[in-house]
Amino acid sequence: MIPHEAGPLIALLSDFGGRDAYAGIMKGVILGRCPRARIVDLGHEIPPGDVRAAAFQLRSALPYFPEGTLFVCVVDPGVGSDREIVFVRGRRHRYLAPDNGLLGPALEIDAPREARLLRDPSLRLKPLSRTFHGRDIFAPAAAALAGGAPPASLGPRAGKLVRMRLPRPRRRGNSVVGEVLAVDRFGNAITNLTPRDLGRRRRLRAMERGFPLRTHYAQARPGQALALVGSTGFVELSIRDGDLGALTGAGIGEAVYAD
Amino acid sequence: MIPHEAGPLIALLSDFGGRDAYAGIMKGVILGRCPRARIVDLGHEIPPGDVRAAAFQLRSALPYFPEGTLFVCVVDPGVGSDREIVFVRGRRHRYLAPDNGLLGPALEIDAPREARLLRDPSLRLKPLSRTFHGRDIFAPAAAALAGGAPPASLGPRAGKLVRMRLPRPRRRGNSVVGEVLAVDRFGNAITNLTPRDLGRRRRLRAMERGFPLRTHYAQARPGQALALVGSTGFVELSIRDGDLGALTGAGIGEAVYAD
Amino acid sequence: MIPHEAGPLIALLSDFGGRDAYAGIMKGVILGRCPRARIVDLGHEIPPGDVRAAAFQLRSALPYFPEGTLFVCVVDPGVGSDREIVFVRGRRHRYLAPDNGLLGPALEIDAPREARLLRDPSLRLKPLSRTFHGRDIFAPAAAALAGGAPPASLGPRAGKLVRMRLPRPRRRGNSVVGEVLAVDRFGNAITNLTPRDLGRRRRLRAMERGFPLRTHYAQARPGQALALVGSTGFVELSIRDGDLGALTGAGIGEAVYAD
Repeated sequence: MIPHEAGPLIALLSDFGGRDAYAGIMKGVILGRCPRARIVDLGHEIPPGDVRAAAFQLRSALPYFPEGTLFVCVVDPGVGSDREIVFVRGRRHRYLAPDNGLLGPALEIDAPREARLLRDPSLRLKPLSRTFHGRDIFAPAAAALAGGAPPASLGPRAGKLVRMRLPRPRRRGNSVVGEVLAVDRFGNAITNLTPRDLGRRRRLRAMERGFPLRTHYAQARPGQALALVGSTGFVELSIRDGDLGALTGAGIGEAVYAD
Repeated sequence: MIPHEAGPLIALLSDFGGRDAYAGIMKGVILGRCPRARIVDLGHEIPPGDVRAAAFQLRSALPYFPEGTLFVCVVDPGVGSDREIVFVRGRRHRYLAPDNGLLGPALEIDAPREARLLRDPSLRLKPLSRTFHGRDIFAPAAAALAGGAPPASLGPRAGKLVRMRLPRPRRRGNSVVGEVLAVDRFGNAITNLTPRDLGRRRRLRAMERGFPLRTHYAQARPGQALALVGSTGFVELSIRDGDLGALTGAGIGEAVYAD
Repeated sequence: MIPHEAGPLIALLSDFGGRDAYAGIMKGVILGRCPRARIVDLGHEIPPGDVRAAAFQLRSALPYFPEGTLFVCVVDPGVGSDREIVFVRGRRHRYLAPDNGLLGPALEIDAPREARLLRDPSLRLKPLSRTFHGRDIFAPAAAALAGGAPPASLGPRAGKLVRMRLPRPRRRGNSVVGEVLAVDRFGNAITNLTPRDLGRRRRLRAMERGFPLRTHYAQARPGQALALVGSTGFVELSIRDGDLGALTGAGIGEAVYAD
């Protein structure tokens, strides 16, 4: 027995949830066609059809994965319509996703080098279902790519991709106005404001509360509101040892003021 | 470093949920005894003790797994009673499950060739618990099988297995009456009606609504009801971009009429 | 193609939940630095910041993992404070955790041989976030250890660790008084009482109900209350085929009397 070369790495992101076997079924298809693949779950609890939430999670995660990782992203409210499925090879990573904007924020930090439409019928399961392209198109294509198939075998070059962008903060007088991009499991509200956007501003306002900018949770007392630069590089609003999201009902799109 | 032969594939299905470490503990036992095993979660969110839901998920998943996969299914409300645990080798796959009917629908599409009772005490963890046979019996047996142990080493041949069957549609006049088998994460109600059952019927009724049969989601407007042949080969009832299950409270067993 | 030596085994336990990509991001960091690592989820649904729940899950799981498993435990309400992160090598296993007591119950059954503080800045991601040390400190250290780095490379020897202990039962007259340590997915209330604590006592009381001690679920009728020795070696209170937790609202810390 000797050490082995690790197999190709595939990261899965979807809105399939854990109640049904949908995510497991995709793994069955992949491992049947590429037994050496290593599969990591980026998560399957994206709210159903929420392309923007998926785009944010993918963008947050990708800098931390090794070069060449294949991200397979199936949040696909247009399944069965004429929307395309695309393969994109970026500077560092590779992606399969519906052409619905999901890849936009990721491609802002991992510039695309090549994009293909997944049109080759020989790579699809037969019969092709109308509702589960994760199983019938994404998984076989992922296995083929992981096994070394050239991108050109997937289908023709893609034209301009649909690219969702994260909303940008705006100036209003001396203030900067951003918004909430996501609320995480701990109830922290992740905004679209970066330290560069804040400049010298040290006080944030949202949901009729103030959030002084701190550098550590430990600078607030339990129950106190604070803002700090979170792990994604964006400013987050929090209650120390509390759940801001549950307390205020803060949701995606909520306005956040820095002044 | 050289490419390697992939290890044996084990798929786990249970009602253990994610709050406790039960599923992880089974993996610890398996990997301690068969380090090369590749383990895939088919899901652990089966409602507690719901053998029928597990049977449906297993049957939906197994055609998509490679030949020889070992499915370990632990939804076991009779744990600690005198129910048996069985190993079944089908035409394509292998199974470990309580002898409570869970394997029935799977074995309708993967005919059994051999069945054994898991009675050999040498394959069990000691002390044997009264409540967690997933850890103490299923996991060591799975590791032994994955490592190449012959089925005969598990115990004696099984007699007639308990086999749950999915309910069959009935004719009533010119109509066909089926029922809901499962409601998935998206709120789609999966029925036991196949295209063959429908014949030329194109209109379904359930929960005092009509569901015209379509071929794609995109043929309905957002918020409209429709029926289509889903990814399991059964007809599904849906609300385009909506959650039929949440809207109507539709549950397993709900009657569905095609006329 | 030849069989291969299995890679090092890492078990992850956290309160990250499934909604965000946090757990997946840790895996990306680990697999980027130690591609051969095999990663198992012990669970990510620990209630946010609940160190005691994590301590209990870890202690329940570790006897069932192979020798040398590296447990990476990130339930870390003190992230960003001056709390230390520690590596501990026990008799059988290895651990990374905040020095907040989480490892206490585990180390009662896996005596520590060596403990180090994770202070070497060269093992941390840069820039180091204030809020996600699972990604920036735990994951790179786990990959280094899995890849064979000596513990001394992590940082200096640790002094006395913070060690939470599970609460011990007390005697009161002829009775023994314990408490609920955890309520599992099935609603079973796991107590801190062992068969040794009970001696000849066969009747438990809690939440104004009686729970006769049985050896199998099958000795109670559906809906009846019972107690039995559960899979962790502790006495559990249950309703046969029911959910005691949901029925009574029983929670952690609830008193349990044996007399």
